[in-house]
Amino acid sequence: MKLYDLELSGNCYKVRLFASFANLALSFEAVDFFNAEHKSTSFMQLNPWAEVPVLTDGTLVLRDAQAILVYLANKYAGEAWWPSEAHLQADVMQWLSVAANELQHGPNKARLVKKFNVDSDYKLAESNTHTLCKLINNHLQTNTWLAANRPTIAECAIFPYIALAHEGNIDLSNYESLNLWLNRVKQLPNFISMPGIK
Amino acid sequence: MKLYDLELSGNCYKVRLFASFANLALSFEAVDFFNAEHKSTSFMQLNPWAEVPVLTDGTLVLRDAQAILVYLANKYAGEAWWPSEAHLQADVMQWLSVAANELQHGPNKARLVKKFNVDSDYKLAESNTHTLCKLINNHLQTNTWLAANRPTIAECAIFPYIALAHEGNIDLSNYESLNLWLNRVKQLPNFISMPGIK
Repeated sequence: MKLYDLELSGNCYKVRLFASFANLALSFEAVDFFNAEHKSTSFMQLNPWAEVPVLTDGTLVLRDAQAILVYLANKYAGEAWWPSEAHLQADVMQWLSVAANELQHGPNKARLVKKFNVDSDYKLAESNTHTLCKLINNHLQTNTWLAANRPTIAECAIFPYIALAHEGNIDLSNYESLNLWLNRVKQLPNFISMPGIK
Repeated sequence: MKLYDLELSGNCYKVRLFASFANLALSFEAVDFFNAEHKSTSFMQLNPWAEVPVLTDGTLVLRDAQAILVYLANKYAGEAWWPSEAHLQADVMQWLSVAANELQHGPNKARLVKKFNVDSDYKLAESNTHTLCKLINNHLQTNTWLAANRPTIAECAIFPYIALAHEGNIDLSNYESLNLWLNRVKQLPNFISMPGIK
């Protein structure tokens, strides 16, 4: 399996993190994002959405970090990280939607503005981030993990851009339960980091 | 099972549409969104995110249309609409992420501005919608259905806000393959409509 990867992308890190947790062997092909390789003809034949990560496994080509997490967990990691039982799977799925939407338009976008000078509405991204962090923090006041009472791919999908929020100049120090959860994720066996995450 | 529902919400319609396709019996509780019932204490105990739809099934409470689709399909509709095989499930999942993100920040937002006078960046929503529709249209030039070579919950997740895009003053007439697909969905057995969709 090959991951088309960008070291500084939180979305790519979602996949690298899960692969490490689940002891999956990935090969990596670095995409030269800052020279727009993701918009090249050859890359867009792989992913017309012009985004990383992309996973290939034999003839299979998958885009979208959340879909890649579902694939890897379902195919190679068994029941633990992506439950097959309906109510548990849907519990995880709620957080995959958050990872696809609120996380992108909150802490990811704030970081894109502050770290990579992307032209976007910082005030909106900052406000979205605090709305999101309050909701997650409240949830974690009575839950050890995001879903299904155990670490799942929801952790891999949500952790990266929360742990990188400080690179978007977002102060998370008031979210005590969120910070305790960040530390619990960091203490999971085979946790790996990325640049920007201590 | 009870769906906390808003007739004019495309996100609620995703669930109503799937329940009809799969012959699932839902009861409905209308949420008085326009009088902010979704921000009431009692509703926010059910869903702290203050959004519809919400599904209850016994003691289970689920938010997020995509998570509800996964739950209903997994629990009550068998293999057809939400494949359990990894590569097919991930194929569908790619579109559930699109439904959670690009669809919300494209045609849903354009409609919120034009139909419901929500204060948001219409030009951005319009541009996002055309970017999205081009990608879907290209995909459908060589695919009958969005994923897994058959109608799945991806259709239920994507169809509503594409079919409602005209209410956001978005002209889809140039997207031929997309329009053919809209018609294919409308011809599926047990298709139901909602206000704004012919």
